Amino acid sequence: MKRLAILGSTGSIGQSTLSIVEQFPDRYSVVALAAGRNVDEAFAQASRWRPKVVSMATEELAAELSRRLRQAGVTGMDVAHGPAGTVACSTLAEADFVVSAIVGVAGLEATHAAILAGKPVGLANKECMVAAGEILTAAARQRKVLILPIDSEHNAVHQCLRVGTHGEVKTIWLTASGGPFRQLPLEKFDSITPAQALKHPTWVMGRRITIDSATMLNKGLEIIEACRLFDLPPSQVRVTVHPQSTVHSLVEFVDGSILAQISVTDMRLPILYALAYPERPASNLTFDLAALKHLDFEQPDFERFPCLRLAYEAAEKGGAHCIALNAADEVAVEAFLQGAIPFTGIPRTIEAVLASTPEAHPETIAGVLAADGEARERARALVA
Amino acid sequence: MKRLAILGSTGSIGQSTLSIVEQFPDRYSVVALAAGRNVDEAFAQASRWRPKVVSMATEELAAELSRRLRQAGVTGMDVAHGPAGTVACSTLAEADFVVSAIVGVAGLEATHAAILAGKPVGLANKECMVAAGEILTAAARQRKVLILPIDSEHNAVHQCLRVGTHGEVKTIWLTASGGPFRQLPLEKFDSITPAQALKHPTWVMGRRITIDSATMLNKGLEIIEACRLFDLPPSQVRVTVHPQSTVHSLVEFVDGSILAQISVTDMRLPILYALAYPERPASNLTFDLAALKHLDFEQPDFERFPCLRLAYEAAEKGGAHCIALNAADEVAVEAFLQGAIPFTGIPRTIEAVLASTPEAHPETIAGVLAADGEARERARALVA
Repeated sequence: MKRLAILGSTGSIGQSTLSIVEQFPDRYSVVALAAGRNVDEAFAQASRWRPKVVSMATEELAAELSRRLRQAGVTGMDVAHGPAGTVACSTLAEADFVVSAIVGVAGLEATHAAILAGKPVGLANKECMVAAGEILTAAARQRKVLILPIDSEHNAVHQCLRVGTHGEVKTIWLTASGGPFRQLPLEKFDSITPAQALKHPTWVMGRRITIDSATMLNKGLEIIEACRLFDLPPSQVRVTVHPQSTVHSLVEFVDGSILAQISVTDMRLPILYALAYPERPASNLTFDLAALKHLDFEQPDFERFPCLRLAYEAAEKGGAHCIALNAADEVAVEAFLQGAIPFTGIPRTIEAVLASTPEAHPETIAGVLAADGEARERARALVA
Repeated sequence: MKRLAILGSTGSIGQSTLSIVEQFPDRYSVVALAAGRNVDEAFAQASRWRPKVVSMATEELAAELSRRLRQAGVTGMDVAHGPAGTVACSTLAEADFVVSAIVGVAGLEATHAAILAGKPVGLANKECMVAAGEILTAAARQRKVLILPIDSEHNAVHQCLRVGTHGEVKTIWLTASGGPFRQLPLEKFDSITPAQALKHPTWVMGRRITIDSATMLNKGLEIIEACRLFDLPPSQVRVTVHPQSTVHSLVEFVDGSILAQISVTDMRLPILYALAYPERPASNLTFDLAALKHLDFEQPDFERFPCLRLAYEAAEKGGAHCIALNAADEVAVEAFLQGAIPFTGIPRTIEAVLASTPEAHPETIAGVLAADGEARERARALVA
């Protein structure tokens, strides 16, 4: 029985994780839930799973949850709040495995704390690896802690890597759907509306990640994530555009063999893989290979998607540049969604923030968060 | 340094194996070469590689080779001949690894002897596994001997299987090019000429295997080979038609993940994999993934290709039926190439031979060869 702490339990990955626990009651139980602001969902989850501790974003929300749990006669549960509450969840003595699925750098401190506490982590939060990958992977190496990627591409890579050694890897090929504007004429990019950009061709996801798919900055973040997770330079991580999102990624080995992973586009599969690794429990997440007709691939267009180039530049520099890439993008995407800047303003904002970023490699989470905050300020000034 | 015995050294796989040895002189040397009837090539190979023993098909050919080696001043080499000579090669004390690449059941005894002698085998000969898979795999289990498939499909499967356990495998999917008649109207099958059937769309191979690709009996043999090599029932081995022959096969796991192997269509890659396993040396056999555009898949058509159905039937019965499938096909293909029967006569001959085959499971190589001979006789009577 693996006892889980789920950070970001009320989000999409958190809920999918709980649906896996529901399907495999003999394998998994829940000991900690770090929710956000959704008291209704947190109350339902806490009532259903009876964790040792549940945490909310603020003291007020925690008080509200406590009151409702008391009313419902649910007892014996610590209700915590804020960053300290999230850390309490991720470092709980009873937790055997931590699912890190809080969006953005908000999950960073608790994920780092989980690794320092020696707990294996299923990582669904790519911003953690982009902003603090150097710190997290160093801690994981030192503590001999396994970090299992839940991002579908990196999960696919993790699977493919099992057929060879690290030194035998030539290139990791991340697949990209190419987003909704893969074939849009370049001159129309300035007039793309938020409504158009929010329509992703293959995955249903949150707002920021959907826009990041449309600019391909999302793939850029994944390039950096792959470099950190798999300890490879940016030159060994490439992108191939694959509109069907059926092949989730590929690994090319030095002998010439390429391994690819194919599955349904359902996040429960990489979650199950991470939870069960190295085992593979039988699931109903079946891909109908007999119905497969075509798989298409094409080269990514760096002119259409300058965010890819910016990500490679940040990946080469590492440290503060990766932090700034992520922070500037988050601010720029929000500005685009609010109509403050055009679609093409997103890469322009990122490029300007990167240009004013000093070369630095923060060695603490506090240093990362400070660099993140500074980059956001510069981005906000630009989009204002 | 791995010292190789190569059975079938003058054939296509044998020559490709020697080109790998040429590329990796620090990894591999040659201690035994079992050639066939090509004295010129055998002489060139023996002179170049200076094995301990070289064997020819007949005593006369061996005498001719000895004479030429003497003339050239090449000494210190045993020249053997016939089946005993092949066995002498495959069981040579100095050999660390045996490449079994003699076409047809002729390689069976020597391959069995190699396994009994505890030598790991790279198996390029699918008839061995079809006719005597039960015997060979039992011997390999008992002696804890590794059999590494060199057939590109099974080699791909072997790679994909490394990401899970045997119990986690749901289905092996062998890819098939579909051959030259994948889209030919069914009513034209009777008038297919040998010249048409000898044009394979993606691989350049020997005559029988090319015709076997056109009837898809080749894929049928591979289904049986896969069942034996990977210890799975026929219901867990399926075929998907993939005209580009880029994905060499796939393995579907019970959790829903499918792993696929992609590479150039060059037999040197599976040979290198088998020789080097579990390592992957760097090679120049590079697949240009950036140039990949489309991969197509479709369901195999059992009406157009009755050989597939016959192979599944033989696979279910095992033993003498698998032997008869292979033997009858070899006779029927030869009769087709000589104009004695039409293309559609190949499956008709096989079906008739299978119908008259008794259920039996020979437990010795001699028993296999006897059943093979009987099936050939029945097939010859049918095509006469």
